Amino acid sequence: MRREAMIEAVRAQMPEKRWSHTLGVMHTSVELANRFGADPVKAEQAAILHDVAKYWPVDRMEEALRGEGRGLADDLLDYDKELWHAPVGALVAARDYGVTDGDVLSAIRFHTSGREDMSLLDKVVCLADYMEPGRQFPAVDKIRELAEHSLERALLAGFDSTIAFLLEKGKRIYPLTVAARNDLIVRLNREADRQ
Amino acid sequence: MRREAMIEAVRAQMPEKRWSHTLGVMHTSVELANRFGADPVKAEQAAILHDVAKYWPVDRMEEALRGEGRGLADDLLDYDKELWHAPVGALVAARDYGVTDGDVLSAIRFHTSGREDMSLLDKVVCLADYMEPGRQFPAVDKIRELAEHSLERALLAGFDSTIAFLLEKGKRIYPLTVAARNDLIVRLNREADRQ
Repeated sequence: MRREAMIEAVRAQMPEKRWSHTLGVMHTSVELANRFGADPVKAEQAAILHDVAKYWPVDRMEEALRGEGRGLADDLLDYDKELWHAPVGALVAARDYGVTDGDVLSAIRFHTSGREDMSLLDKVVCLADYMEPGRQFPAVDKIRELAEHSLERALLAGFDSTIAFLLEKGKRIYPLTVAARNDLIVRLNREADRQ
Repeated sequence: MRREAMIEAVRAQMPEKRWSHTLGVMHTSVELANRFGADPVKAEQAAILHDVAKYWPVDRMEEALRGEGRGLADDLLDYDKELWHAPVGALVAARDYGVTDGDVLSAIRFHTSGREDMSLLDKVVCLADYMEPGRQFPAVDKIRELAEHSLERALLAGFDSTIAFLLEKGKRIYPLTVAARNDLIVRLNREADRQ
């Protein structure tokens, strides 16, 4: 699907407020991709589609995860529904929007949870989702500041803020997010040791 | 080994300050066991031995985990050394102190990390280690207060404090602790639904 058609089709899937957020993630993803050497075209495509399933009814998301999405994120069904739209979005991107690029599909699939061994594009889109201009939460200024120089440090601060929020709310922490954070720490420590 | 001999042997393994902590954990474990229906004799035995390997040199702990302890906590070798003394303590309890009771060995093994599906005795010893009278840290008063009525709520607050500490320090979170916390939340929510 061509860029403009994709934008119009995704926009029709969500309320105007969420579309503003998507525009913010598109803008920030391209900016971060250029800053850190990822492909800006892929980054923008993943950003356009990242929340495409956000407003699906919960039972439709569950059906997708148990049906054609089986194996994609089975353990996720046991966790917060807030996380489901990401792998479902990757399914929809492939099926309805003709996306075949594995990097783009991965960035959509893991944009909320993160994962161990994230690709450069995964990191860019996940971080853009944390810090696009419309976001407001206690740690966001610190995340934006870190993102001036380090994709990994900024993303780590993002995961920290998610985990701190879940601690405060007494909600479960999705293990993949902990794995993503632990992995970033190992890489950052290794980098610091080399310097 | 008889109780008095065990106490003397363990005491000789550690500095006086750590022995005071062990006395605190013994006292609190018995108290919590009586309060929540665990076996106070087993609770005290696990408490006596819980830190028996705390002052082992790191390379000796690593040797134990790679040797006779293989399979006990292999992934732990990749995490903070602070966690190693717990499974090593379980090894030592069985080998050098003649402990054969699986409940006691499990409570020693998981007293720092927790685990999914913790036994009543696991919870008692783990919580006692968080809140014995000598402990001082920001959340300890809240933990003690919760422990008046709920073993699970108090332990959850304990795990929350550990995870918050690791976030603050930029250190990795051991996945088993997240699994333990997630599991407690599921159980507490299920209990709340029943009421």
